[in-house]
Amino acid sequence: MNAEKIPNIIITRLPVYLRALQRMAESGLKTTSSQEMGERVGISAAQIRKDISQFGEFGKQGTGYSIPYLVDKLREILKVDRMWDVIIVGAGDMGHALARYQGFSNRGFNVVMIFDNDKSKVGQKIGDFTIEDTANLVEKVKSAGIKIAMLTIPATAAQEIAEKLAQAGVKAILNYAPISLNVPDDVKVQHIDPATHLQRMTYYL
Amino acid sequence: MNAEKIPNIIITRLPVYLRALQRMAESGLKTTSSQEMGERVGISAAQIRKDISQFGEFGKQGTGYSIPYLVDKLREILKVDRMWDVIIVGAGDMGHALARYQGFSNRGFNVVMIFDNDKSKVGQKIGDFTIEDTANLVEKVKSAGIKIAMLTIPATAAQEIAEKLAQAGVKAILNYAPISLNVPDDVKVQHIDPATHLQRMTYYL
Repeated sequence: MNAEKIPNIIITRLPVYLRALQRMAESGLKTTSSQEMGERVGISAAQIRKDISQFGEFGKQGTGYSIPYLVDKLREILKVDRMWDVIIVGAGDMGHALARYQGFSNRGFNVVMIFDNDKSKVGQKIGDFTIEDTANLVEKVKSAGIKIAMLTIPATAAQEIAEKLAQAGVKAILNYAPISLNVPDDVKVQHIDPATHLQRMTYYL
Repeated sequence: MNAEKIPNIIITRLPVYLRALQRMAESGLKTTSSQEMGERVGISAAQIRKDISQFGEFGKQGTGYSIPYLVDKLREILKVDRMWDVIIVGAGDMGHALARYQGFSNRGFNVVMIFDNDKSKVGQKIGDFTIEDTANLVEKVKSAGIKIAMLTIPATAAQEIAEKLAQAGVKAILNYAPISLNVPDDVKVQHIDPATHLQRMTYYL
């Protein structure tokens, strides 16, 4: 199980499998097959078997996968068998939505701070959070040892904040701004945008 | 170019290529290579070449891809060389964020209506939109011939609304609710959630 050996493209699929398996577990299922998983996630059964086999022998021919076991293994592989502190930068609509999102804690994430560069928002509350000034971002994030940030500020300010995040030691940025960020090679960026997801469906319309 | 022949897994990558290419175009670039694209999107150059070659011969050995040409072709393949009307169901934080999102119009989408099932929100404004009652959803969506919806309501109400959307003729649902939807086979569902994207990065931390 060597990080360098597994192609990134396989890594991108594992959280999708994990989400499907966790939902199956919530609905009381104990075992599944690559066929059933495939129908749920829209990936071929053969691909799923191949992806999962990269990490060892998880299923038995004829009996399928144990859901709790595979959930545990995927959580371990993806390092979400622990909790990660995460910050939100940008207290607009999306920042509010993320601050109130219920789906982080059972997936390995814990929002701990929210920042904005708009002085009129600093000091305001979102739920239990008090919005903090991005002027203090580097110091606060560095001293707390936080490695993950979600960036929900407008495109015009995103690059500047991304540089501050890198300076603060952040190694993973989930970018909601519709621009490409220039960050050091050791900082991972994932883009999340609804248009990309919609375009995955228009092909079939 | 037969919809049945191209694996869904390839289709899911094309919008990522298109987004990267459109950003390159915006920054003034005219040509690119599978290597350069690969660095931008985190997918191997070989995979990119293989994916794109499914649809014909777009690049020339040694000269790379023409960005405007490949953008046009991908838009055509994904059927976003036209505009699609889209509705939002759920006028909470996420619904507000989507209603104000600037990244739809240049990617093939046009938000036309916003619905909520909370009577106290019906009639309120979000920008130029007036929030409409989900009680009228089937009738309004059907008569407007809308095929695409973004679902940003809480998990408890999502299944019921998904059924209404299917009844109204919607064929593509972008689901922000953290549950699996049961819909007819001819309705595509894409899940979008930040935790999945974060888990694609924790592996490397």
